[in-house]
Amino acid sequence: MTKVAVFGTGSWGTTFAMLLTEAGNEVTLWGRRRELVERIDRDHVNPDYLPGVPLPEALRATTDPARALDGAEFVVLAVPSQNLRPNLAAWREHIPPGAVLVSLMKGVELGTTKRMSEVIREVAEVPDERVAVVSGPNLAKEIAHRQPAATVVACTDESVAERLQAICHLPPWFRPYTNPDVVGVELGGAVKNVIALAVGVSAGMGMGDNVSAMLITRGLAEISRLGAALGADPHTFAGLAGMGDLVATCTSPLSRNRTFGENLGRGMTLAEVVAATKQTAEGVKSCESVLELAVKHGVEMPITEVVVGVVHDGMSPTEAGMLLMSRSPKPERYGV
Amino acid sequence: MTKVAVFGTGSWGTTFAMLLTEAGNEVTLWGRRRELVERIDRDHVNPDYLPGVPLPEALRATTDPARALDGAEFVVLAVPSQNLRPNLAAWREHIPPGAVLVSLMKGVELGTTKRMSEVIREVAEVPDERVAVVSGPNLAKEIAHRQPAATVVACTDESVAERLQAICHLPPWFRPYTNPDVVGVELGGAVKNVIALAVGVSAGMGMGDNVSAMLITRGLAEISRLGAALGADPHTFAGLAGMGDLVATCTSPLSRNRTFGENLGRGMTLAEVVAATKQTAEGVKSCESVLELAVKHGVEMPITEVVVGVVHDGMSPTEAGMLLMSRSPKPERYGV
Repeated sequence: MTKVAVFGTGSWGTTFAMLLTEAGNEVTLWGRRRELVERIDRDHVNPDYLPGVPLPEALRATTDPARALDGAEFVVLAVPSQNLRPNLAAWREHIPPGAVLVSLMKGVELGTTKRMSEVIREVAEVPDERVAVVSGPNLAKEIAHRQPAATVVACTDESVAERLQAICHLPPWFRPYTNPDVVGVELGGAVKNVIALAVGVSAGMGMGDNVSAMLITRGLAEISRLGAALGADPHTFAGLAGMGDLVATCTSPLSRNRTFGENLGRGMTLAEVVAATKQTAEGVKSCESVLELAVKHGVEMPITEVVVGVVHDGMSPTEAGMLLMSRSPKPERYGV
Repeated sequence: MTKVAVFGTGSWGTTFAMLLTEAGNEVTLWGRRRELVERIDRDHVNPDYLPGVPLPEALRATTDPARALDGAEFVVLAVPSQNLRPNLAAWREHIPPGAVLVSLMKGVELGTTKRMSEVIREVAEVPDERVAVVSGPNLAKEIAHRQPAATVVACTDESVAERLQAICHLPPWFRPYTNPDVVGVELGGAVKNVIALAVGVSAGMGMGDNVSAMLITRGLAEISRLGAALGADPHTFAGLAGMGDLVATCTSPLSRNRTFGENLGRGMTLAEVVAATKQTAEGVKSCESVLELAVKHGVEMPITEVVVGVVHDGMSPTEAGMLLMSRSPKPERYGV
């Protein structure tokens, strides 16, 4: 039995802890709020994030990081991206030597534009081969309701990726594939929300499936160009953490970014959408840091550029569409 | 002014002829049925395939292949895939020497398992550099109603691809990208319908967006493996003619293959679906020839295999899902 600590009682952290438990591991879930942790530990439910889903009785939960980390061979991190740095700094002293740190998080740190695995390496002071990433088309609610799904587990050390694959493989329910390209797998998850905003805007303008497919495909092309500049393998973007997650996010009615974009496409301003929906979307924040990364590395990202224009600089959706469609003719593959 | 002949008055042939005319070319559309040709030539409408869409007055139509081909620099072929061979044999003598033959067709010839560009080379006796292919997420109805779209124009001779790109580029409405990989561009369009059937079956079973995204992505992985065995460039499948067209076909409610699969997923038999919908779907025919190609080249295509099983061999959708999800764990990229 492999001991695993999972940090974060949101829907994905809880669902992944459930999968790991059913796959035969000894799992302890750490949460910040005592009440919720007690419900998980005692009643085997997470009413806040997975209402109606029975959790396995063998799954333990605690608010004590030292207890969660005691003897853990894998430490799975599923906290909000912008909270990772201070959280991990507080937990660091309890992490067993040799444990593998696994990120379930999709985001780029504001200010530093660092990926989550970079923050982990820096704060926990561990080498590349002890940091892994899990990413793919994994809407937590569907998995928690026992629908099948596939994902990618990435680590520069393939034997570590295979160990992680082995502990979370649960046929016929959950199917993980290994991939050595941590940068590419992580970047796919971080940039997809910007493209989902663009797809939402076009849908809100009344555009059909050709336009969605064009934005998804050319969006992936610009993510691949950025990835190539950052050292990723372009093939990764044709996989589950690239196009897989992008397709799920851009086509699912559950996607907050797509819905946010739809409202912009119907002619609402950013302030009006935020006021009407009482929330913002990840892509609204991250489009600027993604563009910053692109400029820094001299990469053309025309869709990201017009998303920043529409979201932050008052560009009209029509003008954005005209700009994209009036670029000079190009070969399909360039800059990769 | 470039002279272009377009063969085929279906929705895509007519729409492409309309695009070419508006882009400033001298276009003659050939059709078999006199009445329809007269409506197009005289009244500038195609009531059978594009009701309600006004066609350009400059677009000519004829039933005489010699007249359509007179002086043509480009010959665009948009007839049903299985009719190409006898049709082209009859037109061959009128094709001007040096003309470029362009396929808009998506299919594999039954019996020979040949791609359309192969049939063209063989029947018209022209070299590679005079055969081009246009393929991408191009639902004709959306383009005919003036929604923007992008596509790929492929020819082994890049200067020919660029000439074709120049004559059909119509900003901000239609954006063609060049690609030298004819095999890959053509294969994407031919195999997508098999995957659309699989996505439809899973939707009919009540599965959500993770499963669709998984089938689309792993479907593209198996198309890429087949492509690699046939000499295609794997990158092409991450482009508009690969994932672009696949995403549009798998997610559009207009897709006949997806709808057909949905009915199978709800538990109907092939005969029941055909009886209820009075039509079959392209993927139902082509899944067997695709699998034949895969077996011939020693390529694993697990999704295509279960589609053949469900459609033709009485396998239940549940059994198909179990088979796919119970395969041995794998790296994400293999066989490419």
